[in-house]
Amino acid sequence: MSTKNGQFIPGLQGVVAAETNLSSVDGQKGELIIAGFPVEVLAGSAGHEEVIYLLWHDHLPNRAELEGFKEEMAAERPIAPATIELLRTAAAEKRPVMDALRMGAATLDLQREQGASDEQTALAIVARLPVIVAAYWRLRQGQEPVAPRLDLGQAANYLYMLTGEEADPAMVRGLETYLNTVIDHGLNASTFAARVIVATQSDLVSAVVGAIGALKGPIHGGAPGPALDMVFAIGSPENAEPYMRMLLERGERLMGFGHRVYKVRDPRAEVLSKAAEKMFTGGGDMALYTLARHVEDTAVVLLEEYKPGRQLQTNVEFYTALLLHGLGLSTELFTPTFALSRAAGWLAHCFEQQRDGRIIRPDSRYRGEMNRSWQPMAERI
Amino acid sequence: MSTKNGQFIPGLQGVVAAETNLSSVDGQKGELIIAGFPVEVLAGSAGHEEVIYLLWHDHLPNRAELEGFKEEMAAERPIAPATIELLRTAAAEKRPVMDALRMGAATLDLQREQGASDEQTALAIVARLPVIVAAYWRLRQGQEPVAPRLDLGQAANYLYMLTGEEADPAMVRGLETYLNTVIDHGLNASTFAARVIVATQSDLVSAVVGAIGALKGPIHGGAPGPALDMVFAIGSPENAEPYMRMLLERGERLMGFGHRVYKVRDPRAEVLSKAAEKMFTGGGDMALYTLARHVEDTAVVLLEEYKPGRQLQTNVEFYTALLLHGLGLSTELFTPTFALSRAAGWLAHCFEQQRDGRIIRPDSRYRGEMNRSWQPMAERI
Repeated sequence: MSTKNGQFIPGLQGVVAAETNLSSVDGQKGELIIAGFPVEVLAGSAGHEEVIYLLWHDHLPNRAELEGFKEEMAAERPIAPATIELLRTAAAEKRPVMDALRMGAATLDLQREQGASDEQTALAIVARLPVIVAAYWRLRQGQEPVAPRLDLGQAANYLYMLTGEEADPAMVRGLETYLNTVIDHGLNASTFAARVIVATQSDLVSAVVGAIGALKGPIHGGAPGPALDMVFAIGSPENAEPYMRMLLERGERLMGFGHRVYKVRDPRAEVLSKAAEKMFTGGGDMALYTLARHVEDTAVVLLEEYKPGRQLQTNVEFYTALLLHGLGLSTELFTPTFALSRAAGWLAHCFEQQRDGRIIRPDSRYRGEMNRSWQPMAERI
Repeated sequence: MSTKNGQFIPGLQGVVAAETNLSSVDGQKGELIIAGFPVEVLAGSAGHEEVIYLLWHDHLPNRAELEGFKEEMAAERPIAPATIELLRTAAAEKRPVMDALRMGAATLDLQREQGASDEQTALAIVARLPVIVAAYWRLRQGQEPVAPRLDLGQAANYLYMLTGEEADPAMVRGLETYLNTVIDHGLNASTFAARVIVATQSDLVSAVVGAIGALKGPIHGGAPGPALDMVFAIGSPENAEPYMRMLLERGERLMGFGHRVYKVRDPRAEVLSKAAEKMFTGGGDMALYTLARHVEDTAVVLLEEYKPGRQLQTNVEFYTALLLHGLGLSTELFTPTFALSRAAGWLAHCFEQQRDGRIIRPDSRYRGEMNRSWQPMAERI
């Protein structure tokens, strides 16, 4: 509704639009709490399904609960033939992966059972989104999709569907740590979109499809590719300082550094850096990891020199890029892989919003003319 | 982001989240301004494409502009074969029309041309949504879709695609008046969803798909069916008072009366009532129109008697139902037909939001625990 009162708040900055039990972000302290646990405690220890269960139920599952949850989720993996056909068409048109994910996700109703509970629907959504991404990715490469394996966990099955081969356990652990790290992060734009949609008492598929659309936006879903591109361009440790000095002298940004909220090192960067170290030590390109660490250390020193007091620290994109690259994922898969994890967070927010029960409907302020007079066509210039 | 400051504002009520030139709603005065024109001036006089042009360009088109706009829009009507196949599958699963519209809309990228401007994309979206609805509706009835006619306007073509026959001009005018009346209405939940999505610099298809998802929600897209159901149940004028007294004595709501914002008669109800009168006079079920008017008059008197001071007046749903029924539309098509018009409003808001250029990202307040301690699986109960 339009209103004459009230001041326009651009971007709704600082307005509290939800109360949540899901995550807490303290940018000054560099602290991220996920459902009561510091991200450092949770991300590397818990299985991915365990963290999803935690967000949806506000407690850690016991063994029986976790096994049941994983089984139900795995059973929901197969996607409809019509979805595959649609992805095939999208692949022929070479649509970006996020567009294909949005199209595919919008068809998940085709398989919705009459009278399914919201938790069953949510399980099906989280189970099937990775199948859509992996199937589309293979179709885009001219390969046939690999059917999901129901005996693997979410992370292991995703890597399996991408390559057709079972991934090394160290790789699976690396991916689980990534997925756990980015599963929820306060009220970002895609999470908020999901809440606005479900608050009309619409359904979970609609909310997730809307949120995927928001995450697609380059100023939200981010561009984790460029951070790694810089590391590749630097190539060896001795080039780090001259290369980044050149960028800074030209007034360019160093991709992968600085965050709107965090004024110290993003706690997620810390977790992902450790996960990457473990993963690369276990058989990856350790030289790349070492180079990235050197680039990071040099960047932080140079940023303090060129932009004193700005406190530009490594953000989550820098180590996301390194970790996902180490898993063999193409840059084009970075944002879609992010979406696979964040979808579980969106759904947790939807559950909260459903309990809140209120439509989200702010006001607008009209600034146009009030009484234009109608001109017949002949009188218009 | 979570924050410790700031008070939670449920539903963001009263918060101004956008400045707009598109519409102004004054619920006390019963006034709706659309791009500078009172809805009464615009809705019944202008062609539907003329109002879309007005919203997108903030001025009325001259003859050449309007003809060009209509031609370009008509040319965009054909939908992709893959979209039709998807609708065929959805029809076999008997999905609700709004679900099919969301699925179909999410595939509109398949036809997006490289380098298309946002206005071209918006034209294509508005051109194709009615084609999706009409094709799906026929498939659901076991009929083959009727291909769009490119020589008809948006409203005439929609009615043509639903039935395979050209509609009477009085019917087309009735539909145009409806579409113009509901094209924009401040910052409702679906419009806000579209703005949140496009504010991440995502694309227009994503924004419209998200907005369709929001409009689907029963507390937003509304239930224009039940208002008419009551008129049918009443059947003849002498039953109006006893029937509605019975409902009110039981504490039930009278569907089609009362609105969150309007405290006088919704100006849209006024416009649609006149349009319905004209249309029914021109060859429809005039007895139904007369009955509906009698039901309305009686309801307003009874509501003042049973709920004094609440100022419960006829809302837009009451005459929407009557008008769309008079056009031969099934109740199941009411909300999807609403979406066809509102989509042009969503896109106009997207253009405004793109010019604003800022991400919409309110805060959340964390109310959960802060330092849970990790329990190994064996210790969980």
